[in-house]
Amino acid sequence: MTGKFITFEGPEGGGKSTHIKLLADFLRSKGKEVLVTREPGGTRLAELIRSLVREELEDPPVTQSEVLLFLAARAQVVSNVIRPALEKGVWVLCDRFSDSTFAYQGYGRGVEVDLLRRLNDFATQGLVPDMTVLLDVPPEVSRSRLLARQADTNSTADRIEQAGEDFHRRLREGFLAMAKDEPQRFTVVDSSKELEDVSKNIEEAVLKLL
Amino acid sequence: MTGKFITFEGPEGGGKSTHIKLLADFLRSKGKEVLVTREPGGTRLAELIRSLVREELEDPPVTQSEVLLFLAARAQVVSNVIRPALEKGVWVLCDRFSDSTFAYQGYGRGVEVDLLRRLNDFATQGLVPDMTVLLDVPPEVSRSRLLARQADTNSTADRIEQAGEDFHRRLREGFLAMAKDEPQRFTVVDSSKELEDVSKNIEEAVLKLL
Repeated sequence: MTGKFITFEGPEGGGKSTHIKLLADFLRSKGKEVLVTREPGGTRLAELIRSLVREELEDPPVTQSEVLLFLAARAQVVSNVIRPALEKGVWVLCDRFSDSTFAYQGYGRGVEVDLLRRLNDFATQGLVPDMTVLLDVPPEVSRSRLLARQADTNSTADRIEQAGEDFHRRLREGFLAMAKDEPQRFTVVDSSKELEDVSKNIEEAVLKLL
Repeated sequence: MTGKFITFEGPEGGGKSTHIKLLADFLRSKGKEVLVTREPGGTRLAELIRSLVREELEDPPVTQSEVLLFLAARAQVVSNVIRPALEKGVWVLCDRFSDSTFAYQGYGRGVEVDLLRRLNDFATQGLVPDMTVLLDVPPEVSRSRLLARQADTNSTADRIEQAGEDFHRRLREGFLAMAKDEPQRFTVVDSSKELEDVSKNIEEAVLKLL
Protein backbone atom coordinates (compact mmCIF):
# COMPACT_ATOMS: atom_id res chain seq x y z
CA MET A 1 0.00 0.00 0.00
CA THR A 2 1.34 3.45 -0.87
CA GLY A 3 1.53 6.39 1.50
CA LYS A 4 -0.35 9.67 1.14
CA PHE A 5 1.18 12.91 -0.06
CA ILE A 6 0.00 16.04 1.77
CA THR A 7 1.30 19.48 0.88
CA PHE A 8 0.99 22.72 2.86
CA GLU A 9 0.59 25.98 0.99
CA GLY A 10 0.02 29.64 1.77
CA PRO A 11 1.98 32.81 2.46
CA GLU A 12 5.01 33.08 4.73
CA GLY A 13 3.80 33.62 8.30
CA GLY A 14 0.77 31.38 7.74
CA GLY A 15 2.01 28.78 10.22
CA LYS A 16 3.00 26.02 7.76
CA SER A 17 5.95 24.61 9.71
CA THR A 18 4.04 24.60 13.02
CA HIS A 19 1.06 22.77 11.55
CA ILE A 20 3.21 20.30 9.62
CA LYS A 21 4.89 19.37 12.89
CA LEU A 22 1.56 18.98 14.69
CA LEU A 23 0.09 16.89 11.86
CA ALA A 24 3.19 14.68 11.76
CA ASP A 25 2.75 13.98 15.51
CA PHE A 26 -0.95 13.29 14.97
CA LEU A 27 -0.30 10.83 12.12
CA ARG A 28 2.44 9.07 14.08
CA SER A 29 0.00 8.67 16.98
CA LYS A 30 -2.25 6.87 14.47
CA GLY A 31 0.61 4.47 13.65
CA LYS A 32 1.71 6.03 10.37
CA GLU A 33 5.30 6.42 9.30
CA VAL A 34 5.76 10.09 8.35
CA LEU A 35 8.39 11.98 6.35
CA VAL A 36 8.53 15.78 6.54
CA THR A 37 10.26 17.70 3.76
CA ARG A 38 10.26 21.18 2.32
CA GLU A 39 10.51 22.96 -1.01
CA PRO A 40 12.80 24.07 -2.39
CA GLY A 41 15.00 21.62 -0.51
CA GLY A 42 14.84 18.08 0.82
CA THR A 43 18.03 16.80 -0.85
CA ARG A 44 21.57 18.14 -0.84
CA LEU A 45 21.27 19.33 -4.46
CA ALA A 46 17.86 20.89 -3.81
CA GLU A 47 19.16 22.73 -0.73
CA LEU A 48 22.00 24.14 -2.85
CA ILE A 49 19.42 25.30 -5.40
CA ARG A 50 17.34 26.81 -2.58
CA SER A 51 20.31 28.90 -1.52
CA LEU A 52 20.71 30.18 -5.12
CA VAL A 53 17.07 31.30 -5.25
CA ARG A 54 16.77 32.84 -1.81
CA GLU A 55 20.11 34.48 -1.15
CA GLU A 56 21.14 37.91 -2.28
CA LEU A 57 23.29 37.46 -5.37
CA GLU A 58 24.82 40.17 -7.50
CA ASP A 59 22.69 38.81 -10.36
CA PRO A 60 19.45 37.56 -8.76
CA PRO A 61 17.59 35.07 -10.98
CA VAL A 62 15.37 36.54 -13.70
CA THR A 63 11.77 35.24 -13.58
CA GLN A 64 12.38 32.39 -16.06
CA SER A 65 15.51 31.33 -14.22
CA GLU A 66 13.72 31.44 -10.86
CA VAL A 67 10.92 29.21 -12.19
CA LEU A 68 13.37 26.72 -13.67
CA LEU A 69 15.48 26.56 -10.50
CA PHE A 70 12.43 25.85 -8.34
CA LEU A 71 11.37 23.15 -10.80
CA ALA A 72 14.88 21.61 -10.87
CA ALA A 73 14.82 21.34 -7.07
CA ARG A 74 11.32 19.82 -7.26
CA ALA A 75 12.33 17.22 -9.87
CA GLN A 76 15.15 16.08 -7.61
CA VAL A 77 13.14 15.80 -4.39
CA VAL A 78 10.21 14.08 -6.15
CA SER A 79 12.45 11.53 -7.78
CA ASN A 80 14.87 10.83 -4.93
CA VAL A 81 12.79 11.44 -1.79
CA ILE A 82 9.02 11.75 -2.19
CA ARG A 83 8.22 8.95 -4.65
CA PRO A 84 10.46 6.37 -2.95
CA ALA A 85 8.87 7.21 0.43
CA LEU A 86 5.30 6.99 -0.90
CA GLU A 87 6.09 3.65 -2.53
CA LYS A 88 7.23 2.32 0.86
CA GLY A 89 3.90 3.36 2.43
CA VAL A 90 5.30 6.44 4.19
CA TRP A 91 3.08 9.54 4.51
CA VAL A 92 4.90 12.56 3.12
CA LEU A 93 4.21 16.09 4.40
CA CYS A 94 5.77 18.78 2.23
CA ASP A 95 6.15 22.48 3.01
CA ARG A 96 5.22 23.99 -0.39
CA PHE A 97 4.93 22.19 -3.73
CA SER A 98 3.59 22.84 -7.24
CA ASP A 99 0.86 25.25 -6.11
CA SER A 100 3.54 27.64 -4.80
CA THR A 101 4.99 27.87 -8.31
CA PHE A 102 1.57 28.65 -9.76
CA ALA A 103 0.86 31.20 -7.02
CA TYR A 104 4.24 32.97 -6.76
CA GLN A 105 5.51 32.88 -10.35
CA GLY A 106 2.10 32.67 -12.02
CA TYR A 107 -0.39 34.83 -10.11
CA GLY A 108 2.41 36.81 -8.39
CA ARG A 109 4.89 37.49 -11.20
CA GLY A 110 2.60 37.11 -14.18
CA VAL A 111 3.97 34.00 -15.92
CA GLU A 112 1.14 32.21 -17.76
CA VAL A 113 -0.23 29.58 -15.35
CA ASP A 114 -0.99 27.00 -18.09
CA LEU A 115 2.61 27.19 -19.26
CA LEU A 116 3.81 26.76 -15.67
CA ARG A 117 1.59 23.67 -15.36
CA ARG A 118 3.23 22.10 -18.41
CA LEU A 119 6.74 22.89 -17.15
CA ASN A 120 5.83 21.61 -13.70
CA ASP A 121 4.45 18.38 -15.12
CA PHE A 122 7.86 17.66 -16.62
CA ALA A 123 9.51 18.28 -13.22
CA THR A 124 7.09 16.19 -11.13
CA GLN A 125 6.47 13.53 -13.79
CA GLY A 126 2.79 13.99 -12.99
CA LEU A 127 2.86 13.63 -9.20
CA VAL A 128 -0.12 15.47 -7.63
CA PRO A 129 -0.74 15.69 -3.85
CA ASP A 130 -3.52 13.59 -2.33
CA MET A 131 -4.41 16.61 -0.21
CA THR A 132 -3.27 20.22 -0.08
CA VAL A 133 -3.80 22.25 3.08
CA LEU A 134 -4.03 25.96 2.28
CA LEU A 135 -3.30 27.99 5.41
CA ASP A 136 -5.05 31.19 4.49
CA VAL A 137 -4.42 34.41 6.39
CA PRO A 138 -5.17 38.05 5.59
CA PRO A 139 -1.95 39.76 4.39
CA GLU A 140 -1.78 41.97 7.51
CA VAL A 141 -1.69 38.90 9.78
CA SER A 142 1.03 37.12 7.82
CA ARG A 143 2.98 40.37 7.71
CA SER A 144 2.90 40.94 11.47
CA ARG A 145 3.79 37.25 12.13
CA LEU A 146 6.70 37.53 9.75
CA LEU A 147 8.00 40.69 11.43
CA ALA A 148 7.71 39.02 14.84
CA ARG A 149 9.70 36.03 13.58
CA GLN A 150 12.40 38.27 12.15
CA ALA A 151 12.69 40.09 15.48
CA ASP A 152 12.91 36.71 17.29
CA THR A 153 15.58 35.31 15.03
CA ASN A 154 17.33 38.63 14.44
CA SER A 155 17.03 38.04 10.66
CA THR A 156 15.95 40.23 7.77
CA ALA A 157 13.43 39.61 5.04
CA ASP A 158 14.78 37.70 2.04
CA ARG A 159 14.24 38.66 -1.59
CA ILE A 160 10.87 36.90 -1.90
CA GLU A 161 9.52 38.05 1.46
CA GLN A 162 10.39 41.64 0.55
CA ALA A 163 8.05 41.73 -2.46
CA GLY A 164 5.38 44.41 -2.14
CA GLU A 165 1.82 44.36 -0.78
CA ASP A 166 0.27 44.14 -4.20
CA PHE A 167 2.28 40.99 -4.90
CA HIS A 168 1.05 39.39 -1.67
CA ARG A 169 -2.54 40.26 -2.48
CA ARG A 170 -2.27 38.58 -5.91
CA LEU A 171 -0.61 35.59 -4.26
CA ARG A 172 -3.48 35.09 -1.85
CA GLU A 173 -6.07 35.49 -4.59
CA GLY A 174 -4.17 32.92 -6.64
CA PHE A 175 -4.13 30.34 -3.86
CA LEU A 176 -7.85 30.87 -3.19
CA ALA A 177 -8.70 30.61 -6.90
CA MET A 178 -6.83 27.31 -7.22
CA ALA A 179 -8.56 25.97 -4.10
CA LYS A 180 -11.92 26.87 -5.63
CA ASP A 181 -10.99 25.05 -8.87
CA GLU A 182 -9.99 21.85 -7.08
CA PRO A 183 -12.18 21.56 -3.97
CA GLN A 184 -11.57 17.78 -3.69
CA ARG A 185 -7.83 18.25 -3.26
CA PHE A 186 -7.70 21.53 -1.31
CA THR A 187 -8.61 22.04 2.33
CA VAL A 188 -8.69 25.77 3.07
CA VAL A 189 -8.15 26.64 6.73
CA ASP A 190 -8.43 30.12 8.23
CA SER A 191 -5.05 30.36 9.91
CA SER A 192 -5.78 33.62 11.70
CA LYS A 193 -7.81 31.55 14.20
CA GLU A 194 -6.42 30.02 17.41
CA LEU A 195 -3.68 27.43 16.87
CA GLU A 196 -5.74 24.59 18.41
CA ASP A 197 -8.73 25.33 16.18
CA VAL A 198 -6.60 25.41 13.03
CA SER A 199 -4.90 22.17 14.03
CA LYS A 200 -8.26 20.52 14.73
CA ASN A 201 -9.57 21.57 11.28
CA ILE A 202 -6.53 20.03 9.59
CA GLU A 203 -6.81 16.77 11.54
CA GLU A 204 -10.50 16.42 10.67
CA ALA A 205 -9.73 16.85 6.98
CA VAL A 206 -6.84 14.38 7.09
CA LEU A 207 -8.94 11.75 8.88
CA LYS A 208 -10.82 11.27 5.59
CA LEU A 209 -7.58 10.03 4.00
CA LEU A 210 -6.92 7.48 6.75
CA MET B 1 22.02 47.78 -35.72
CA THR B 2 22.05 44.60 -33.66
CA GLY B 3 24.96 42.19 -33.37
CA LYS B 4 25.02 38.59 -34.57
CA PHE B 5 24.70 35.57 -32.33
CA ILE B 6 26.96 32.63 -33.23
CA THR B 7 26.97 29.41 -31.23
CA PHE B 8 29.50 26.58 -31.29
CA GLU B 9 28.31 23.03 -30.80
CA GLY B 10 29.72 19.53 -30.85
CA PRO B 11 31.30 16.99 -28.50
CA GLU B 12 33.96 17.73 -25.90
CA GLY B 13 37.36 17.58 -27.57
CA GLY B 14 35.98 19.01 -30.82
CA GLY B 15 38.01 22.21 -30.48
CA LYS B 16 35.21 24.64 -29.61
CA SER B 17 37.19 26.94 -27.32
CA THR B 18 40.15 27.14 -29.74
CA HIS B 19 37.94 28.04 -32.69
CA ILE B 20 35.87 30.52 -30.70
CA LYS B 21 39.08 32.34 -29.80
CA LEU B 22 40.29 32.33 -33.41
CA LEU B 23 36.94 33.57 -34.72
CA ALA B 24 36.80 36.32 -32.07
CA ASP B 25 40.23 37.55 -33.26
CA PHE B 26 39.09 37.38 -36.88
CA LEU B 27 35.91 39.39 -36.19
CA ARG B 28 37.82 41.98 -34.17
CA SER B 29 40.23 42.36 -37.09
CA LYS B 30 37.11 43.21 -39.14
CA GLY B 31 36.23 45.97 -36.66
CA LYS B 32 33.50 44.12 -34.77
CA GLU B 33 33.02 44.27 -31.02
CA VAL B 34 32.91 40.65 -29.78
CA LEU B 35 31.71 39.03 -26.58
CA VAL B 36 32.68 35.43 -25.82
CA THR B 37 30.59 33.46 -23.33
CA ARG B 38 29.89 29.85 -22.47
CA GLU B 39 27.08 27.61 -21.36
CA PRO B 40 26.27 26.78 -18.70
CA GLY B 41 27.89 29.90 -17.31
CA GLY B 42 28.42 33.50 -18.29
CA THR B 43 26.96 35.10 -15.16
CA ARG B 44 27.74 34.54 -11.48
CA LEU B 45 24.42 32.69 -10.97
CA ALA B 46 24.91 30.61 -14.10
CA GLU B 47 28.45 29.64 -13.04
CA LEU B 48 27.06 28.48 -9.68
CA ILE B 49 24.48 26.41 -11.55
CA ARG B 50 27.24 25.02 -13.78
CA SER B 51 29.09 23.79 -10.72
CA LEU B 52 25.91 22.02 -9.51
CA VAL B 53 25.53 20.17 -12.80
CA ARG B 54 29.14 19.23 -13.41
CA GLU B 55 30.58 18.45 -10.00
CA GLU B 56 30.29 15.15 -8.23
CA LEU B 57 27.49 15.49 -5.69
CA GLU B 58 26.20 12.80 -3.36
CA ASP B 59 22.88 13.20 -5.19
CA PRO B 60 23.72 14.01 -8.83
CA PRO B 61 20.81 15.64 -10.67
CA VAL B 62 18.18 13.31 -12.12
CA THR B 63 17.56 13.85 -15.84
CA GLN B 64 14.65 16.28 -15.34
CA SER B 65 16.64 18.27 -12.80
CA GLU B 66 19.68 18.39 -15.08
CA VAL B 67 17.57 19.73 -17.96
CA LEU B 68 15.95 22.37 -15.76
CA LEU B 69 19.28 23.51 -14.28
CA PHE B 70 20.83 23.95 -17.74
CA LEU B 71 17.74 25.91 -18.81
CA ALA B 72 17.83 28.09 -15.68
CA ALA B 73 21.45 29.00 -16.43
CA ARG B 74 20.49 29.72 -20.05
CA ALA B 75 17.57 31.97 -19.08
CA GLN B 76 19.91 34.02 -16.92
CA VAL B 77 22.70 34.44 -19.47
CA VAL B 78 20.26 35.20 -22.31
CA SER B 79 18.45 37.84 -20.30
CA ASN B 80 21.41 39.49 -18.57
CA VAL B 81 24.29 39.04 -21.02
CA ILE B 82 23.47 37.88 -24.55
CA ARG B 83 20.40 40.00 -25.39
CA PRO B 84 21.83 43.25 -23.95
CA ALA B 85 25.07 42.71 -25.93
CA LEU B 86 23.25 41.97 -29.20
CA GLU B 87 21.10 45.07 -28.72
CA LYS B 88 24.27 47.16 -28.44
CA GLY B 89 25.57 45.76 -31.74
CA VAL B 90 28.07 43.37 -30.16
CA TRP B 91 28.73 40.00 -31.83
CA VAL B 92 28.23 37.20 -29.31
CA LEU B 93 30.07 33.88 -29.59
CA CYS B 94 28.74 31.24 -27.24
CA ASP B 95 30.29 27.89 -26.35
CA ARG B 96 27.18 25.63 -26.42
CA PHE B 97 23.55 26.74 -26.45
CA SER B 98 20.08 25.23 -27.03
CA ASP B 99 21.30 22.55 -29.45
CA SER B 100 23.42 21.03 -26.67
CA THR B 101 20.26 20.50 -24.61
CA PHE B 102 18.54 18.80 -27.55
CA ALA B 103 21.63 16.66 -28.27
CA TYR B 104 22.68 15.70 -24.73
CA GLN B 105 19.36 15.41 -22.89
CA GLY B 106 17.24 14.64 -25.97
CA TYR B 107 19.20 12.38 -28.31
CA GLY B 108 21.64 11.35 -25.54
CA ARG B 109 19.39 10.71 -22.54
CA GLY B 110 16.11 10.08 -24.32
CA VAL B 111 13.97 13.06 -23.24
CA GLU B 112 11.45 13.89 -25.99
CA VAL B 113 13.07 16.57 -28.18
CA ASP B 114 9.79 18.43 -28.90
CA LEU B 115 9.18 18.76 -25.17
CA LEU B 116 12.74 20.05 -24.70
CA ARG B 117 12.12 22.63 -27.44
CA ARG B 118 9.06 23.94 -25.61
CA LEU B 119 10.91 24.11 -22.28
CA ASN B 120 13.88 25.77 -23.98
CA ASP B 121 11.67 28.33 -25.62
CA PHE B 122 10.52 29.47 -22.19
CA ALA B 123 14.16 29.80 -21.06
CA THR B 124 15.43 31.68 -24.13
CA GLN B 125 12.23 33.66 -24.74
CA GLY B 126 12.61 32.61 -28.37
CA LEU B 127 16.23 33.62 -29.00
CA VAL B 128 17.72 31.52 -31.84
CA PRO B 129 21.34 31.84 -33.05
CA ASP B 130 22.02 33.56 -36.39
CA MET B 131 24.57 30.84 -37.08
CA THR B 132 25.57 27.61 -35.37
CA VAL B 133 28.98 26.08 -36.06
CA LEU B 134 28.93 22.34 -35.50
CA LEU B 135 32.46 21.06 -34.96
CA ASP B 136 31.99 17.46 -35.96
CA VAL B 137 34.57 14.80 -35.10
CA PRO B 138 34.41 11.03 -35.04
CA PRO B 139 34.03 9.82 -31.41
CA GLU B 140 37.53 8.26 -31.39
CA VAL B 141 39.13 11.63 -32.24
CA SER B 142 37.22 13.57 -29.57
CA ARG B 143 38.03 10.82 -27.09
CA SER B 144 41.78 10.92 -27.73
CA ARG B 145 41.80 14.74 -27.61
CA LEU B 146 39.93 14.67 -24.33
CA LEU B 147 42.37 12.18 -22.82
CA ALA B 148 45.28 14.34 -23.97
CA ARG B 149 43.72 17.40 -22.36
CA GLN B 150 43.16 15.53 -19.11
CA ALA B 151 46.80 14.42 -19.09
CA ASP B 152 47.89 18.03 -19.78
CA THR B 153 45.77 19.56 -17.04
CA ASN B 154 46.10 16.62 -14.65
CA SER B 155 42.30 16.48 -14.40
CA THR B 156 39.81 13.63 -14.54
CA ALA B 157 36.68 13.22 -16.64
CA ASP B 158 33.56 14.81 -15.14
CA ARG B 159 30.17 13.14 -14.88
CA ILE B 160 29.05 14.08 -18.40
CA GLU B 161 32.38 13.29 -20.08
CA GLN B 162 32.34 9.84 -18.48
CA ALA B 163 29.11 8.76 -20.20
CA GLY B 164 29.63 5.70 -22.40
CA GLU B 165 30.45 5.26 -26.08
CA ASP B 166 26.87 4.56 -27.06
CA PHE B 167 25.84 7.89 -25.53
CA HIS B 168 28.49 9.75 -27.54
CA ARG B 169 27.40 8.04 -30.74
CA ARG B 170 23.76 9.12 -30.17
CA LEU B 171 25.00 12.63 -29.37
CA ARG B 172 26.84 12.94 -32.67
CA GLU B 173 23.91 11.54 -34.64
CA GLY B 174 21.66 14.06 -32.90
CA PHE B 175 23.85 17.03 -33.79
CA LEU B 176 24.10 15.89 -37.41
CA ALA B 177 20.33 15.31 -37.65
CA MET B 178 19.62 18.82 -36.36
CA ALA B 179 22.14 20.32 -38.80
CA LYS B 180 20.38 18.49 -41.64
CA ASP B 181 16.99 19.88 -40.50
CA GLU B 182 18.23 23.48 -40.40
CA PRO B 183 20.89 23.86 -43.10
CA GLN B 184 20.47 27.66 -43.22
CA ARG B 185 21.48 28.04 -39.58
CA PHE B 186 24.05 25.24 -39.22
CA THR B 187 27.57 25.18 -40.63
CA VAL B 188 29.02 21.71 -40.18
CA VAL B 189 32.82 21.60 -40.11
CA ASP B 190 34.95 18.46 -40.03
CA SER B 191 37.07 19.21 -37.00
CA SER B 192 39.37 16.24 -37.45
CA LYS B 193 41.10 18.25 -40.22
CA GLU B 194 44.10 20.57 -39.68
CA LEU B 195 43.42 23.52 -37.39
CA GLU B 196 44.06 26.11 -40.14
CA ASP B 197 41.64 24.40 -42.53
CA VAL B 198 38.90 24.21 -39.92
CA SER B 199 39.44 27.84 -39.00
CA LYS B 200 39.34 28.88 -42.69
CA ASN B 201 36.02 27.00 -43.15
CA ILE B 202 34.48 28.80 -40.19
CA GLU B 203 35.67 32.23 -41.37
CA GLU B 204 34.27 31.67 -44.86
CA ALA B 205 30.87 30.77 -43.41
CA VAL B 206 30.87 33.76 -41.06
CA LEU B 207 31.80 36.17 -43.87
CA LYS B 208 28.24 35.68 -45.20
CA LEU B 209 26.90 37.27 -42.00
CA LEU B 210 29.15 40.34 -42.27
